[in-house]
Amino acid sequence: MVEPVRIALDAMGGDFGPSVVIPGAAQFLERKPDSTFIIYGDSEKIAECLAPYANLRAASKVIHSKVAVGMADKPSQALRAGRRVSSMWMAIEAVKTGAAHCAVSAGNTGALMAMSKVCLHTMAQIERPALAAIWPTLRGRSIVLDVGATIGADAQHYVDLSMMGAAMARALFGIERPTVGLLNVGVEEVKGVEEVKTASRLLQQIDSPLFSYHGFVEGDDIGRGTSDVVVTEGFTGNIALKTAEGTARQISAYLRQELTGSWINKLGALIARGAFRQLKARLTPRETSGAVLLGLDGVVIKGHGGIDSNGFSGAIEIAHGMVRRGLLEKVRDMMALAEQQVNAQRAHDDSAQDAPAQAERPLATGQ
Amino acid sequence: MVEPVRIALDAMGGDFGPSVVIPGAAQFLERKPDSTFIIYGDSEKIAECLAPYANLRAASKVIHSKVAVGMADKPSQALRAGRRVSSMWMAIEAVKTGAAHCAVSAGNTGALMAMSKVCLHTMAQIERPALAAIWPTLRGRSIVLDVGATIGADAQHYVDLSMMGAAMARALFGIERPTVGLLNVGVEEVKGVEEVKTASRLLQQIDSPLFSYHGFVEGDDIGRGTSDVVVTEGFTGNIALKTAEGTARQISAYLRQELTGSWINKLGALIARGAFRQLKARLTPRETSGAVLLGLDGVVIKGHGGIDSNGFSGAIEIAHGMVRRGLLEKVRDMMALAEQQVNAQRAHDDSAQDAPAQAERPLATGQ
Repeated sequence: MVEPVRIALDAMGGDFGPSVVIPGAAQFLERKPDSTFIIYGDSEKIAECLAPYANLRAASKVIHSKVAVGMADKPSQALRAGRRVSSMWMAIEAVKTGAAHCAVSAGNTGALMAMSKVCLHTMAQIERPALAAIWPTLRGRSIVLDVGATIGADAQHYVDLSMMGAAMARALFGIERPTVGLLNVGVEEVKGVEEVKTASRLLQQIDSPLFSYHGFVEGDDIGRGTSDVVVTEGFTGNIALKTAEGTARQISAYLRQELTGSWINKLGALIARGAFRQLKARLTPRETSGAVLLGLDGVVIKGHGGIDSNGFSGAIEIAHGMVRRGLLEKVRDMMALAEQQVNAQRAHDDSAQDAPAQAERPLATGQ
Repeated sequence: MVEPVRIALDAMGGDFGPSVVIPGAAQFLERKPDSTFIIYGDSEKIAECLAPYANLRAASKVIHSKVAVGMADKPSQALRAGRRVSSMWMAIEAVKTGAAHCAVSAGNTGALMAMSKVCLHTMAQIERPALAAIWPTLRGRSIVLDVGATIGADAQHYVDLSMMGAAMARALFGIERPTVGLLNVGVEEVKGVEEVKTASRLLQQIDSPLFSYHGFVEGDDIGRGTSDVVVTEGFTGNIALKTAEGTARQISAYLRQELTGSWINKLGALIARGAFRQLKARLTPRETSGAVLLGLDGVVIKGHGGIDSNGFSGAIEIAHGMVRRGLLEKVRDMMALAEQQVNAQRAHDDSAQDAPAQAERPLATGQ
C-alpha cells in the first residue's frame, strides 16, 4: 500500500479562513483519499467547520494556534509576531520536521515566503526562492515563474529560475525535456535588458538532458503555450499574471453585458449555456488556484487569497501532486547535474592544453 | 474655416505596406474630410493603390522614396541606411519642417523611435521618449505607458512618464485632471522596486492642477480602469500589453472552439451573433491600433505592424485627434508648470528662514 500524503494546512490563511479551507480539504479528500491532514489554527472555529465532514475528521489532526497572520501584515511584522506560534509558521514547520510532506496556505504571500525561507531554507545552490504559477494556454498548460517572490534578477538567477521551472514541468507534466522560454520585449537578439540577454547566452551554453532552451518569448507567447516554462523576474511576472487575470475578467464582463443586452442575445446564450460553462472551466481550471514556492527545502503551496473551497481544493491537489511526483527530487537532480556539468567544463578548461581529447560532455545521457 | 490637418504617411511601413496604408487613409478621409496627406514611399506602388480612391488622390501629394526600413532591421541599421532617404525618415522630417502636423507609420518600432529622436528631438526637460497605448477598460479607456520605447526607468523618468501620460489623457479624453496610477506588484507601500517607490513619493509631493496621483495600481487594475493613466517602464509595459493581447486571443479561441463544438452551441451562437460582433468591437476598438510616441517635439503615431486598413485608419485617427486637441501644447504646459513649481519650491526653501510667509503654491490655479 502507498503511504498517504500528509498535508499541513494553514486554516487561518486567505480572506475566509477555515470556512473555505475545511470544505476545500473535504472536497479534495473525496478526489484523493490517499491523504491525511494536520490542520493548524483556531481549534474551536476549525471544529465547527469540520462538523459536517466525517471522512475529513477521521483523516485529520487539529493543532491549535491562537496567532493568525493578517493578510496586510508586512513580512517582517508577520515574522516578529508569528514565528513559531502562528498557524502559517506551524504548517511550514510540519514540513521541516517531517510531520507533513507539504504545506498549503492561502495567506499573505510575503509572509508565507519569508517564513518558508526562514524555517525551511533554500536548497543548496539556490539563493532566492521563486513563486511559480500554472497558466492555462492554447496548447495545454505552462509554468510561469517568478510571479512575485523576488523582485529583480541577475543573469544567474534567470538560469536558476529556468532550472527550477523545468524541474517543476518534469514533475507536473511528466515531460522529460521541457522547453524553457525567457520573457523579453522582442524576439530579436538586440532587444531587452542586459541581464536577460546575458542569461540567454548562458542558457544557450547549457546542454542539459533535462530541459531545452527555446530562446526569447514575448507576452503573447504565454497564452499561446510557445514553451512549457516561461521565465521572468518577480516584478514583471506578477504584473503579467495579474494583467492576464484582469483581461480575462474584463472580457467575461463584456460577454455578460452583451449576452444580457437584448432578448435575442439572452436566448442565444441560454441555448449555448453549455459552451459558456466550458469556457469558464477552461479559463479558471482548479490547478490555477495555487502557486508553488520553488527553491525551498520543502513543498509549500500558496493558494490565492480570495479563492473559494473548490479553488482551495485545487491548491491542495497541486501540493499532493508535487509530493507524489517528486518535485523536490527533480529540482535537486536538475541542480546537481548542472553543477556536475559546470565542474566538468571547468576541469576540461583547466586541462585543455594537456589533454585535448577529453570528453566534452560526460553527462550528456543524464539520468 | 478650420485649417486641414496635414498628415505624413510612411506608405512602406507594416507587414503590408501601401496595400494597407492607402485604403486605410481613404477610409479615414471619409470620416474626417478635414485632412490632407503627404504619402512617402514607392511612388509606383502607391499610385496603383491610390487608383480606386479619387477623394484621397485629390487630398494627397505623393513623394517618392526608394528606401524602405525593414521590419526586422535594427534601429542603428535603419538609421544608417534610411536616414534622410527612407519613407519613414521623410514622413518624420515632414513634421519637423512643418510640411505636416503629424506622421503615421506602421513600420519597425525601434527604427521609428530612433529616427524620431534623431530627427525631431525630445522636448526640453524630457530625456527619453515613451510609447503610449490606448487600452480599453471596463470604465472606458485608459492610457498605458511606456509600452516599449525605453527599457528601465529611474524615479524621475517615472515622474516624466506620469506627466506625459496625463497630458495625453487631457488631450484624448478632455479630462482636466486625469488620475495617474503607478504600476506595481502590490498596493502596500512596502512592495516593489526602489525606483518605483521613490517615484511614488515624488508624485505624492507634486500637487499639480493638471493631474492627480492615484497611487500604486496592479496588473488587474489596468483592465478595470482604476486610473486614467497607468505608468510603468518599457519592459514591463510591453510585456503587460502583449500578455493582455495574448489573453484576449486565447479567450476568443476558446470561445470559438466551444461555440462550434456542438450543433446546440452553434445554434445559440448564431442567435446571439450580434453579441459576439459587439464583443469583438469592444475588444479591438479602432483607436487601439496605434500607439503615440510621447516626449518628442512633434506628433508621431506608430500603427501596429500587422493591422489591416481599418486598423490603419484608426492609427491615422489618433494622429488627427492628437493634433486637433493640442497634444504637444498640453505636454509643454504640463512640463512648464512642473518646472515653475519646482523653482517656486526651491525659492521657497532657500528663503524659508528669511521669509516664512511666502506663498507655497503660487501656481495652484493652473491654466
